Amino acid sequence: TEQIRIAVLPGDGIGPEVIREASLVLRAAAQAEGIRIELIEGLLGGVAIQACGVPLPEETMELVRGSSAVLAGAVGGPAWDSLPERLNPGLGGMLRLRRELDLFANLRPVVSLPGASPFLDILLVREATGGAYFSMPRGRAAAEEVRAFDTIMYSEAQITRVIRVAADLAESRSGRLASIDKANVLESSRLWREVAERELAGWDIEVEHLYVDNAAYQLARDPSRFDVIVTENMFGDILSDQLAGALGSLGLLPSAGLGTGTFGLYEPVHGSAFDITEHDVANPIGAIRSAAMLLRHSLGAIAAARRIDDACTAVLSEGFGTRDTHPIHDVGTRELTRRILERMR
Amino acid sequence: TEQIRIAVLPGDGIGPEVIREASLVLRAAAQAEGIRIELIEGLLGGVAIQACGVPLPEETMELVRGSSAVLAGAVGGPAWDSLPERLNPGLGGMLRLRRELDLFANLRPVVSLPGASPFLDILLVREATGGAYFSMPRGRAAAEEVRAFDTIMYSEAQITRVIRVAADLAESRSGRLASIDKANVLESSRLWREVAERELAGWDIEVEHLYVDNAAYQLARDPSRFDVIVTENMFGDILSDQLAGALGSLGLLPSAGLGTGTFGLYEPVHGSAFDITEHDVANPIGAIRSAAMLLRHSLGAIAAARRIDDACTAVLSEGFGTRDTHPIHDVGTRELTRRILERMR
Ligand SMILES: CC(C)[C@H](C(=O)O)[C@@H](O)C(=O)O
Ligand SMILES: CC(C)[C@H](C(=O)O)[C@@H](O)C(=O)O
Repeated sequence: TEQIRIAVLPGDGIGPEVIREASLVLRAAAQAEGIRIELIEGLLGGVAIQACGVPLPEETMELVRGSSAVLAGAVGGPAWDSLPERLNPGLGGMLRLRRELDLFANLRPVVSLPGASPFLDILLVREATGGAYFSMPRGRAAAEEVRAFDTIMYSEAQITRVIRVAADLAESRSGRLASIDKANVLESSRLWREVAERELAGWDIEVEHLYVDNAAYQLARDPSRFDVIVTENMFGDILSDQLAGALGSLGLLPSAGLGTGTFGLYEPVHGSAFDITEHDVANPIGAIRSAAMLLRHSLGAIAAARRIDDACTAVLSEGFGTRDTHPIHDVGTRELTRRILERMR
Repeated sequence: TEQIRIAVLPGDGIGPEVIREASLVLRAAAQAEGIRIELIEGLLGGVAIQACGVPLPEETMELVRGSSAVLAGAVGGPAWDSLPERLNPGLGGMLRLRRELDLFANLRPVVSLPGASPFLDILLVREATGGAYFSMPRGRAAAEEVRAFDTIMYSEAQITRVIRVAADLAESRSGRLASIDKANVLESSRLWREVAERELAGWDIEVEHLYVDNAAYQLARDPSRFDVIVTENMFGDILSDQLAGALGSLGLLPSAGLGTGTFGLYEPVHGSAFDITEHDVANPIGAIRSAAMLLRHSLGAIAAARRIDDACTAVLSEGFGTRDTHPIHDVGTRELTRRILERMR
């Protein structure tokens, strides 16, 4: 049988550290279930700028296009973050990659540490190819004075497809979906709500529409009342970080960028965190759980995915974790992964 | 001596209830300090649509222009919220009023209930006349398919003036200021950060710049580390509600909309909350503290303002509050105000 090719883009800062651990776990899970994979590394972000002058080299695009899925680390860092658009690791690297691959549905499961109370188990679906992140025009104009502008744009089709993904996920979970917009102020949000209302009328799920300010309020007061949340690009960016804060650490959150087929890009939600790079303290859970999502969504390897998730839950339940989640008795990045690997046997 | 004219715009839903209580407190505080004020009521929001077909009648504009300050309740409600722009109580009423009066600095103090732990005392300064709320173009375009769009626009001057207000406030408080943007993605935010960096270099305060997603994360984890926060319109809308959630209730938050002079518009941050209207359960504290801000900022009546603030703190410390903050032993809207008035004598 042929090997399934997976592109691995370690990225910057703690990216390579956590992706190394996640790759070990991914290999182990695949092997245990008899799935033949090959992991091929490529460059994305600041490290690509250093090596070839651009954050998303053509070689990386080719590797990615020839793969079944991508496992990626965080990109960017102080050395590059103020570079202009095309040269910027975020804008010209990761965001461009999400966009070129049309990975419009960014799934961010927010699940508490075992035993936490209140226990959160929320799935945030962030639209990831439209809105203020990508719409034109954007730039600067200088008449009497300098002005800078962005456009928040959404088409019916863009809204429809992500709402459908979220509705489908809500149906397979609790049957509850919250759609978040700012329809009392923004035109793009008015269209969002119109399309969401029309589209969701056909589904057998309980739907609620919230303004983003009210959503931020409700999430601060009682996040546990939410199950599946769907929202546009920028609101999803903000609210998923708010939820990560409610959970206690960004380091726990995985994500999956999905399009229309089985191809996907999987990455932890945290950033490159140069301040803690190479101290063996980065939390590998977000990256490891991203590998589990990869197995589940792109390879249909449910058993292998479950093997990873169960091992993570078991080890965390035993009280082991990196210092961001376990400040008293913390273990290092490698030690935590070692325990997870041990559990998977 | 002449009377100082104050326009009172009770608005919709619980607006009239809490503004009635706040007006009583305002009168009492002014009288106790020998300040002669007259309160003149006007129409804004849904109630204005009912009476004269538009949410911001010309008469109201005239009243407001002839006044030293405005005390306003929340506007809007299910009956009107989907009306188009000019007829909408939010867009065509309150937002237009903020904009016509050029009240660019929206001050939102977030202060915990007495004795709360962690104790929050944060001042959020929201830019309130620019960004996605007001910039053009906005609307719909239909080529092959319907698209809706908004523009997020900021000029150097718009950023400069609100940063200065925030820096001044930070200097008079802890000397710490956090400026929040999304400069790694948005052009408008890049300009925001450039101007903020340049402008704040001249101030003797400790400045930190955060991306809005990171800010939402930090505010969820440990809001008490912040003192003064300044941000653009939409981010300010979201983050102030997140902070209200951290506090426990939106009902506690007052706000002041300030421009270049002493004129200001003061309103509680909460909405019209039609579901609890006329049940004598609405929290009047946000409105009452807005009246205190009015005395302080527009009338320079520090002693009168302090009289109100101290009475609120005293009554809340004794354990009295409406059911949103005191679910066990709650008192009604009127009873809470009565106790505050008693304390002010
Ligand atoms: C790095 C940045 C451009 C990115 C975003 O805003 O989407 C990140 O915050 C995220 O949430 O994935
Ligand atoms: C009612 C609405 C238009 C308003 C806003 O978004 O500014 C409100 O949420 C606020 O925060 O004052």
